[in-house]
Amino acid sequence: MERLAIGIDLGGTFIKGGLVSNIRGLLHEEHTATEADKGPVQVLQRIAQLVQRLQQHTDNIPLAGIGIGAPGTISWDRTTVKSPPNFPGWDTVNLVKALQERLSLTLPIIVENDANVAGLGSAFYGAGKPFDSFIMVTLGTGVGGAIIYQKKIFRGAHGGAGEIGHMTIDYEGPIAYSGVSGAIEAYIGQRFLSHHARLRLINRPHSLLYQLTQGDLSLLTPQLLTQAAQQGDEPAQEILAWAGHKLGCVLGAAVNLLDIRKIVVGGGISGAGAFILEPARRTLPDFVLTGLREGLEIVQETLGNKVGMLGAAHLVFQYLEEYPTEKAP
Amino acid sequence: MERLAIGIDLGGTFIKGGLVSNIRGLLHEEHTATEADKGPVQVLQRIAQLVQRLQQHTDNIPLAGIGIGAPGTISWDRTTVKSPPNFPGWDTVNLVKALQERLSLTLPIIVENDANVAGLGSAFYGAGKPFDSFIMVTLGTGVGGAIIYQKKIFRGAHGGAGEIGHMTIDYEGPIAYSGVSGAIEAYIGQRFLSHHARLRLINRPHSLLYQLTQGDLSLLTPQLLTQAAQQGDEPAQEILAWAGHKLGCVLGAAVNLLDIRKIVVGGGISGAGAFILEPARRTLPDFVLTGLREGLEIVQETLGNKVGMLGAAHLVFQYLEEYPTEKAP
Repeated sequence: MERLAIGIDLGGTFIKGGLVSNIRGLLHEEHTATEADKGPVQVLQRIAQLVQRLQQHTDNIPLAGIGIGAPGTISWDRTTVKSPPNFPGWDTVNLVKALQERLSLTLPIIVENDANVAGLGSAFYGAGKPFDSFIMVTLGTGVGGAIIYQKKIFRGAHGGAGEIGHMTIDYEGPIAYSGVSGAIEAYIGQRFLSHHARLRLINRPHSLLYQLTQGDLSLLTPQLLTQAAQQGDEPAQEILAWAGHKLGCVLGAAVNLLDIRKIVVGGGISGAGAFILEPARRTLPDFVLTGLREGLEIVQETLGNKVGMLGAAHLVFQYLEEYPTEKAP
Repeated sequence: MERLAIGIDLGGTFIKGGLVSNIRGLLHEEHTATEADKGPVQVLQRIAQLVQRLQQHTDNIPLAGIGIGAPGTISWDRTTVKSPPNFPGWDTVNLVKALQERLSLTLPIIVENDANVAGLGSAFYGAGKPFDSFIMVTLGTGVGGAIIYQKKIFRGAHGGAGEIGHMTIDYEGPIAYSGVSGAIEAYIGQRFLSHHARLRLINRPHSLLYQLTQGDLSLLTPQLLTQAAQQGDEPAQEILAWAGHKLGCVLGAAVNLLDIRKIVVGGGISGAGAFILEPARRTLPDFVLTGLREGLEIVQETLGNKVGMLGAAHLVFQYLEEYPTEKAP
């Protein structure tokens, strides 16, 4: 039976929305500015408008529900977003209640952490499709993570599982914004990686990165690092290899704990592809117990920024499989 | 309905067995030397004899099954033990088949990793009883671990989850026997902790530990460290606090990944109780993302070495709940 769901990816800058069919995949997409600085009422309004625009494309197939991937901590019942970073004025917002009221809808609305939703999107539409269970890492401003276990999001005891970005790889290492010493985010989160690169480049005056930043290394980004590496710049390649090594270390710790041996890496920095992932692949087995090394694999997500809205829509499909009585009329 | 199961804790030195009622708890226990050096046939014989001795105490209540906690890697179908450390001559042994033949039994026999079985024992009979989900750490020769999730063993994708002892806390740290740099086992595994203590004591000639080892620090054990700490010896207390700090670091990494905030610590070294656990409790939140800190708790297992056989017996009870058609006639 064909079902349609709307998947919303609520980001700090943009809200992306997709109308997704469980059979035909992504049918239509829309996006809009989040305008997070104008507070929660405005953001709710933007989401509601996006939903209404997407609803115009259902071709009279009834909508089964709405899934939302949001930053911040999500309540165990998947309704409420708590303190999302970069959303001024949000403390605790029950997105489900607010949207049902605003849209006069009684459809299921399910809210999940954005990294978890990316994992679910990868599991059903992306590089995670071949895997029953895998660890998803999203490299971006921070380092997001999710555990997909038997094709479902592993939520832990309180809904916050998968925070791989805050796992330490050196208990006396550099301090991340979370306050955790040696958290992997303090090495390969965007600002930390750029900072590390600037220090490394002090004695590398011939690096292409000086040209690419027109001599102002404060403009250095992971994107420019990737560009330089692709053009054969050795310092840039070394910096990305250093990042990949750190990624391999933390993934080893995660594999030991979970015995999940497939890893999918997505997000902005993963554009650096092999420059980061090859060193990560070389490092990973050294940090995994011998008996758990067979079948280790790190692959790159290729869906790009569509993975979030696809995963968000899939929240609805999975919910309806588990609670079939809740299906749309 | 009352059910009886036999729980076997297969250790390198002793095999412990208990006859357990799902209603009345532990009814009877027996133990025997493992004689692992005589090879698998002899060990199987010892297990079979232990089962037969325990069967004499069933008071004509039919036996529902046998659970076994074993070292090494356990197959996904819970029948086979692969390469248990300190069991010469074992490569891969199908314990279920071997015991069913030897005992002429068709009862369910379930084999699980010994650390996982300790976790299950704690969940139903020990310090883990109040918790739906918790992380179990067993401090001994090595550092064992298990994840109890919603009152069940979380097995990962291949059955080997919970290897917390091999998680790194310093990617350039000391190398454990697993080859992993900075694995927590390389700090607080018995031999590593004793080694660290000996180095620390070089400049502490007045430590009680010199008396307790009669001047030969090569005889130092975690037990002697605990004894000295209890008698107020500051160097011994410092060494255990150092170990507790490291334990707190690795537990923080595990909490971030799993969002399971209750931790039960068992095993030999945990006799050191507060000397290790207080520093671990102080350190833990510093290595956990702010949003996941509420409700963090580290408690000590108090069942001692009974936790393994109780957990092994409980494998049977849990199996029969999941597959009720398999119940004993």
